[in-house]
Amino acid sequence: MNINDYATIKAYMATQMQDSAHDKHHVYRVLNAAMDIASHEAAVNMDILIAACLLHDIGREKQFANPSLCHAQVGGAMAYEFLLTIGWPDNKAQQVKECITAHRFRSDNPPKSIEAKILFDADKLEACGAIGIARTLIYEGQVSEPLYIMDKDNKIITEGGGADISSFFQEYNFKLKRIYDKFFTNRAKEIAARRRQAAIDFYNSLYTEISQNYNNGVKFSD
Amino acid sequence: MNINDYATIKAYMATQMQDSAHDKHHVYRVLNAAMDIASHEAAVNMDILIAACLLHDIGREKQFANPSLCHAQVGGAMAYEFLLTIGWPDNKAQQVKECITAHRFRSDNPPKSIEAKILFDADKLEACGAIGIARTLIYEGQVSEPLYIMDKDNKIITEGGGADISSFFQEYNFKLKRIYDKFFTNRAKEIAARRRQAAIDFYNSLYTEISQNYNNGVKFSD
Repeated sequence: MNINDYATIKAYMATQMQDSAHDKHHVYRVLNAAMDIASHEAAVNMDILIAACLLHDIGREKQFANPSLCHAQVGGAMAYEFLLTIGWPDNKAQQVKECITAHRFRSDNPPKSIEAKILFDADKLEACGAIGIARTLIYEGQVSEPLYIMDKDNKIITEGGGADISSFFQEYNFKLKRIYDKFFTNRAKEIAARRRQAAIDFYNSLYTEISQNYNNGVKFSD
Repeated sequence: MNINDYATIKAYMATQMQDSAHDKHHVYRVLNAAMDIASHEAAVNMDILIAACLLHDIGREKQFANPSLCHAQVGGAMAYEFLLTIGWPDNKAQQVKECITAHRFRSDNPPKSIEAKILFDADKLEACGAIGIARTLIYEGQVSEPLYIMDKDNKIITEGGGADISSFFQEYNFKLKRIYDKFFTNRAKEIAARRRQAAIDFYNSLYTEISQNYNNGVKFSD
């Protein structure tokens, strides 16, 4: 990608990224991971991939304001329009749009092109390992969700998915721990596998610390 | 403590606790830990200790609204006034106030009574281990602080304290990793030591994952 396009697309991205779980650092990590994965794949169009990485989360703000919107759909359309305004041909802008609309984890629209698969994998690496734990906890803070909720017997509720997710423990068990077999590329699988134990260890430590707190001494809860 | 006082104080506490890093679960964990620690100490006034635990963070909302206020000072005064209104003698309400005003980590007002030392330790355990990491990350999300900031050479900034803290990595190195020798009671030291490795492991994993991301492939950052 030529340096002018990169600077222009990056500047537009920065104006759209506000929250700290999906901030510009997240975007650069996705871009770095995508470059790493791409170096292990043949025939990747780097213009498409770089633009798709930079712009993949620009629909977040609109989804945050209106949760019935899907940030992948919205972001894909925004990216397409933006790339046309800076002079990209329709065909390339369309391919970027397709990468972005297919990058979401909970989606019935799986990535098809190699660039879309790489973006998907690079973004999903952000939910693996310690970084996945950290980003999820930051997100819980942003939306004021608790670390855990308890049942009437003072046990931490760890199950429940989709619309029922309302705590970190539920999010971990519904999403984070299941992500490791969802990759399309071998390089992403390899990076994810290397990160996996850190997430498991953290979750187990957290569960043990909290359980012991409620089991030792007098048991107070609500 | 009689059951009526407990219910009344708890209900008042619940009206004052909103945020997810200092929610009612935090209060109950502090109370549980305090009961555990107290069982290893002689001559603890349980009325004072339980009231102090339940009410120790009720000044948070006021500090959040006006950061020049200290939630320990404000909360101590609020607790004192509240306990008088429910019929506690001035002397007991005053002792609870002294526990709360001395519970803060960054303070030149160290705890003096055994009840104040136990509250301090029980609250500081909440900054240890995996739970300390989790609560800090949730807090970063609440106040929109990033996981890390980078210097001009793309290295994660890990130092900086006090007013300069603006990322999780700085908070970990300035506060979380230094807390393990700050306890007054042996029981709290023991629990903290047991939790320590989980925090170190998580921090190291997070640092490694992020560093590798920026070092592999093309290096993008801002």
